[in-house]
Amino acid sequence: MLSRNELKYIQSLCQKKQREAERLFLAEGVKLVEELLHSEFSVRHIYALDSWQEQQSTVPVTRITEAELQKISNLQTPNQVLAIVAQPDPGPLPALEGQLSLVLDGIQDPGNLGTIIRIADWFGITQIIASTDTVEWFNPKVVQATMGSIIRVKSWYLDLPDFLQQVSVPVWGALLAGENVYTTAPISEGLLVIGNESKGIRAPILPLIQHPVTIPRKGQAESLNAGVATGILLSHLAR
Amino acid sequence: MLSRNELKYIQSLCQKKQREAERLFLAEGVKLVEELLHSEFSVRHIYALDSWQEQQSTVPVTRITEAELQKISNLQTPNQVLAIVAQPDPGPLPALEGQLSLVLDGIQDPGNLGTIIRIADWFGITQIIASTDTVEWFNPKVVQATMGSIIRVKSWYLDLPDFLQQVSVPVWGALLAGENVYTTAPISEGLLVIGNESKGIRAPILPLIQHPVTIPRKGQAESLNAGVATGILLSHLAR
Repeated sequence: MLSRNELKYIQSLCQKKQREAERLFLAEGVKLVEELLHSEFSVRHIYALDSWQEQQSTVPVTRITEAELQKISNLQTPNQVLAIVAQPDPGPLPALEGQLSLVLDGIQDPGNLGTIIRIADWFGITQIIASTDTVEWFNPKVVQATMGSIIRVKSWYLDLPDFLQQVSVPVWGALLAGENVYTTAPISEGLLVIGNESKGIRAPILPLIQHPVTIPRKGQAESLNAGVATGILLSHLAR
Repeated sequence: MLSRNELKYIQSLCQKKQREAERLFLAEGVKLVEELLHSEFSVRHIYALDSWQEQQSTVPVTRITEAELQKISNLQTPNQVLAIVAQPDPGPLPALEGQLSLVLDGIQDPGNLGTIIRIADWFGITQIIASTDTVEWFNPKVVQATMGSIIRVKSWYLDLPDFLQQVSVPVWGALLAGENVYTTAPISEGLLVIGNESKGIRAPILPLIQHPVTIPRKGQAESLNAGVATGILLSHLAR
């Protein structure tokens, strides 16, 4: 049974402002919630149908009805369980040496960000540095689109021009004109910058790209979706 | 000014049943509608704000208000113009020799289908054969997600097992286990089968795949989005 205050509180966490103030986020569905319970993330409270089998004992569980789940869910088809989870502290800026990290310049679409996090996880990339205007990491649509990869990939939201001016590792960037990615050697250390969906990599960042790379086009589409482009580039550069 | 009957009629075209009965679809936005007007597609009627500049003379244009556009638009942010367009007749089954075509086994998400059409267009693939249960080609979300590529890529919805049993070109398929796509030679002729988002390529199709190919995984994500996987595979196989 969900109290009126609980309902209001969970619904308030659908707003970015409230998520940031409380340092919490919402995660839904049997698979994701169980992965979170077995991770280092701190799950604070679970709201679940009776059909959801409790696999743990430390997190408080409130049993709710399907109608109540419908009210608090962000999914079209709610899936048994919703968790309130603490946003982990990303800690200080990570070491960039000896690995490939992704840099996102203003990705706006939550589905695209979620897809990019999932792709990073597929290719073993665990660090993403995002411009401060990139869509919020813990937006419910981002969280769900990562299909659990949000557990394994960490984010730092930074002033990008400032950050890129200070790094000592090489900087690649996805551009419509650049070196053919099919003949570019895999990257063992550095950053790959992915641009905004419609504007690409923005003007203040461009001079900081040392190695522009591009995906050759054989047909007539003007561009590729940001997530698809990230996947293609990493399949060539992060083998 | 939009009459009550026109409003009802356009809204009815948001339903698949009605689109198929009328052999029509809806397309929105300045760029897409102008591309359609300059293509072989038959645009039947245009509904536009006064701000939309008419570039043609043969298609009837009804001027409408922003409030009216809001009522007929499928977009979150309507963009000046909506067109009613005839669904082109795909004609007989295409020749498969001498080129790479895509085959979709039950893609369900309109955004994924639209993204795959856009990727096909980027790599110069103009033919897609889809299972009869693949999401409808002219679903408004598919049309918008193609970013204009729907003009250049043709579709045939067929009984896939039946179709694949009869083809004489080689058949590749995207699977979690198969030949490493990084070391597979580019394909000059044949079919590449992409499976359903959660089930992958389904059981009746599996025996008809002669060349399973896979994208090696370095990290921990369980799978890749169907569109992203299509993009990665084509970047290696359709260079």
